[in-house]
Amino acid sequence: MTELDPSLLLTVDLLGVFCFALSGCLLATSRRFDVVGSLLLGGLTGLGGGIMRDVIIGIHAPTAFGAPIYLVPPLLAAAVVRLGWLTPGRFRRTLLMFDAGGLALFCVSGTLIALEHGLNAIGATLMGVTTAVGGGLLRDIVAREVPQVIRPDGGLYAVPAAVGASLVALTDHLGFNPYHRVGPVEILVIVLVVGFRGLALRQGWQLPLAGPSTPRRPPPS
Amino acid sequence: MTELDPSLLLTVDLLGVFCFALSGCLLATSRRFDVVGSLLLGGLTGLGGGIMRDVIIGIHAPTAFGAPIYLVPPLLAAAVVRLGWLTPGRFRRTLLMFDAGGLALFCVSGTLIALEHGLNAIGATLMGVTTAVGGGLLRDIVAREVPQVIRPDGGLYAVPAAVGASLVALTDHLGFNPYHRVGPVEILVIVLVVGFRGLALRQGWQLPLAGPSTPRRPPPS
Amino acid sequence: MTELDPSLLLTVDLLGVFCFALSGCLLATSRRFDVVGSLLLGGLTGLGGGIMRDVIIGIHAPTAFGAPIYLVPPLLAAAVVRLGWLTPGRFRRTLLMFDAGGLALFCVSGTLIALEHGLNAIGATLMGVTTAVGGGLLRDIVAREVPQVIRPDGGLYAVPAAVGASLVALTDHLGFNPYHRVGPVEILVIVLVVGFRGLALRQGWQLPLAGPSTPRRPPPS
Repeated sequence: MTELDPSLLLTVDLLGVFCFALSGCLLATSRRFDVVGSLLLGGLTGLGGGIMRDVIIGIHAPTAFGAPIYLVPPLLAAAVVRLGWLTPGRFRRTLLMFDAGGLALFCVSGTLIALEHGLNAIGATLMGVTTAVGGGLLRDIVAREVPQVIRPDGGLYAVPAAVGASLVALTDHLGFNPYHRVGPVEILVIVLVVGFRGLALRQGWQLPLAGPSTPRRPPPS
Repeated sequence: MTELDPSLLLTVDLLGVFCFALSGCLLATSRRFDVVGSLLLGGLTGLGGGIMRDVIIGIHAPTAFGAPIYLVPPLLAAAVVRLGWLTPGRFRRTLLMFDAGGLALFCVSGTLIALEHGLNAIGATLMGVTTAVGGGLLRDIVAREVPQVIRPDGGLYAVPAAVGASLVALTDHLGFNPYHRVGPVEILVIVLVVGFRGLALRQGWQLPLAGPSTPRRPPPS
Repeated sequence: MTELDPSLLLTVDLLGVFCFALSGCLLATSRRFDVVGSLLLGGLTGLGGGIMRDVIIGIHAPTAFGAPIYLVPPLLAAAVVRLGWLTPGRFRRTLLMFDAGGLALFCVSGTLIALEHGLNAIGATLMGVTTAVGGGLLRDIVAREVPQVIRPDGGLYAVPAAVGASLVALTDHLGFNPYHRVGPVEILVIVLVVGFRGLALRQGWQLPLAGPSTPRRPPPS
């Protein structure tokens, strides 16, 4: 399996940070936060999943603290939102696809980095999902939203990430990716996860409830 | 002091994960989350305290990511709740006792693991309390509840854990447990913490308020 | 550049922990939590930023777990609030200045500790800001407040910390502080950050909004 240029991983990773940072900055503007609040929420969303991953794996200092280039996407995202190029109401579909792109990329990069640091296939899959959903979870906690990843309509948020991370870990486990690099399989997984997430959004797919389906009482408002 | 079978610790630890995971899945169903939300909330509750402990101590990767058997209890808990074997309304007392069991076990195992990794007696006590209350804290933060551990009626949640962790650390400090294993003393502490917590619940014990007791204004709703 | 007594850093660090712990305990009493909730919220606020810093940098165990003296300030803060020496309504200005002192100190100590552990100037600046705002962020998340650091009126909370951390990192980067110690420059930075924060509070300085200033809709309540 031919390896692609390592800088490809950096490129898509930074794009992922940018997409998630945008979602944080857009939430900040819908709450009428100021520009610093926007930058902090965007930075937390874009970089939070990767920081969680690095802290759990034991990468000190986490990439976000060691490589200043990772600060560029949140700065760009805060500027884009401040200038009004993207607003919470406009381009919502575009944003959701960007968010799906971030999800897809982070589940791949998170899994690969975990494998590279010696986690087994199952642990690396978990780590990939954590990386993909972690930043959005922090965003929603800080902004006091019900986290998207556990919202009743959010099941198909974690599921595509879990499928993508599993495929990456399985490929690796079977020996197809001895150097844990981004290769053709990983690119395919990214496309698949984006498509899966997009289809779930378009079709409004729902998962079964946590408990028995028999209605017992209305949901708390 | 004779040592018990090391696998005993694993057994009770997994039972503790199961109990806490159940509390997360039950909360998920009372909020009408879907099965993935239930699994995520249960997993976070069952495994979160241990992940905090490992990240703080510097165990990379944390047990939850390195030992796949730790994923079984959250899967079981999500299944039990999905199948309706336990519901938020039924067996509430049973659940609270299970939760007390998780609290008791985690304060013991968290303290022992911290001691094994070189923390002093006071740091290990803190670590035991953190392990015991950490998962529930994450559960309540993600589900936007006032965390049980700081709720006005929750003081006797942290107190039994602190008593248990202190006893374990003290025993160890006095040289009775050179290998930081689960022995008769630790089993006794688990029973004591469960009993203490159960009695506090049954009797409705309350602690003094954070500030002077003179009423100043009604609590914010 | 002459170095000051290293114990000076410890002294001011403990004072910073005390100030932040006080803010947590005061919030606990205004919510009518009990004394244990107060101690936990105060401890989390006072020690949380430093624990985040140590976990991210890779200091195991974090100072708060390894040096028992760090537990004294939260205990004192909980006692001061319990005894009614400080209440949420009284001495508010004094408290805000103490909080500003904590912010100033932690942005300096966090940056220096990060530099000492090999982070580059930009990473260390980020780490200083994280240390300074982290404890308050945890306090507000656990107590379900909109975090002060991203609140519309909170921009000038993070900004003074960022200015202070940048100055410390720049001084160090230019070679003026080869041993990453608290020296005259650092003392000046602490005074500057306190003054900046105090002036921002007194004058009610505001930052531009996250998005375009044209009103589109009322903020969600």
